[in-house]
Amino acid sequence: MVVYLVGAGPGDPELITLKAINALKKAEVVLYDKLANEEILEYAENAKLVYVGKQAGQHYKTQDEINKLLVKEAKDNNIVVRLKGGDPFVFGRGGEEMLALKKEGIKFELIPGVTSAIGAPTTIGLPVTHRGIATSLTLVTGHEDPTKKEKQVKWDFKADTIVILMGISNLAENIAEIMKYKDPSTPVCVIENGTMENQRIITGTLENITEKNIKPPALVVIGHVVDVFKEINQIDE
Amino acid sequence: MVVYLVGAGPGDPELITLKAINALKKAEVVLYDKLANEEILEYAENAKLVYVGKQAGQHYKTQDEINKLLVKEAKDNNIVVRLKGGDPFVFGRGGEEMLALKKEGIKFELIPGVTSAIGAPTTIGLPVTHRGIATSLTLVTGHEDPTKKEKQVKWDFKADTIVILMGISNLAENIAEIMKYKDPSTPVCVIENGTMENQRIITGTLENITEKNIKPPALVVIGHVVDVFKEINQIDE
Repeated sequence: MVVYLVGAGPGDPELITLKAINALKKAEVVLYDKLANEEILEYAENAKLVYVGKQAGQHYKTQDEINKLLVKEAKDNNIVVRLKGGDPFVFGRGGEEMLALKKEGIKFELIPGVTSAIGAPTTIGLPVTHRGIATSLTLVTGHEDPTKKEKQVKWDFKADTIVILMGISNLAENIAEIMKYKDPSTPVCVIENGTMENQRIITGTLENITEKNIKPPALVVIGHVVDVFKEINQIDE
Repeated sequence: MVVYLVGAGPGDPELITLKAINALKKAEVVLYDKLANEEILEYAENAKLVYVGKQAGQHYKTQDEINKLLVKEAKDNNIVVRLKGGDPFVFGRGGEEMLALKKEGIKFELIPGVTSAIGAPTTIGLPVTHRGIATSLTLVTGHEDPTKKEKQVKWDFKADTIVILMGISNLAENIAEIMKYKDPSTPVCVIENGTMENQRIITGTLENITEKNIKPPALVVIGHVVDVFKEINQIDE
């Protein structure tokens, strides 16, 4: 009885690790979230596939329900893979699932993945750190738990580069917060569907990025490293 | 003529991506840094292997020399892989190499990797973000360019979790800076040789971590997410 908590990577099916593939090949059941690309489920050729992500217009499973299902499947099967986009611990709620498994005495193993927050910018030639420009990088969720009484994110990050994940629905609000601390002319690059065939890149500044037509899922990269990407791609604005 | 700038992942040879393996298989020459594990060079079965990392007691190549060699090899060979630990853009100086290639009109492609800053904590069950504990994560280099007149890193990061890479030689100095902004009792986890067989984990607090016996290469994870790791592993201090 073992559960592998596995990161599937940012979307491009070639950006999965060997370790993740090996876990999928052994799996008897796979519980998976909405993935950028479902091709990788083909590695799990002997497994029952159970979708536990959100579905438009339908009741979707709460984290507590997912934890319970994960425990049940682990008790019913020998080898379970819990598959998540990116890395299981980068805003993936893998920590809560790990604690639920531990409480029931179920053995688990963690398999990291390429987080989209880094994998998507790297793929397009946008260096999240760069000598003389960025010696620090903050990853932050743009979508805090709406049931929280007080927002935990304060946005006054001192890092040279900020990457916002799941940040499109609250983009205007979050950008307004960031502009309290960063110059409005700071360059911004939005990557829609990063590493996928339908990827789209939109550049701008803190001041004008919210005027552009942006659709989720997308990442928002803020900082002067965006200038390096623009120089490489000869984008002049 | 193409150069692949490739991330090799954090050390465990199974934590390389399919895309990186495919590039190595095609390579005619591989320029590589000091890698946590050289096993992955075996994928480059048709390539000339050129080590460009540091070597104890010897002159090592400057970044400018590496850039020039990369351009030369690209011009002499059809398919070049520039292989780096982790991700090429997370303190990997891939941006400078990309700019050097662009200047010479050499085609390049970026292949992201699992950065050790996330892959090593995830592997040991240390969630770098966790609901109610950490909604933001800062990655920072502990080893700034010593030729810089003024230090760029200010250490007053507002992120809930801080991960310091290459932070052991300046650990006492950097921890003292962080203690200006974070409570001295904030938990710390150091991961030596993350994801490798000789991995070692040391826990403590900002106040006492520098008293422990720590050897590079190691990552330093700071924040209350370390408590989740300690709970899972029943570590009581």
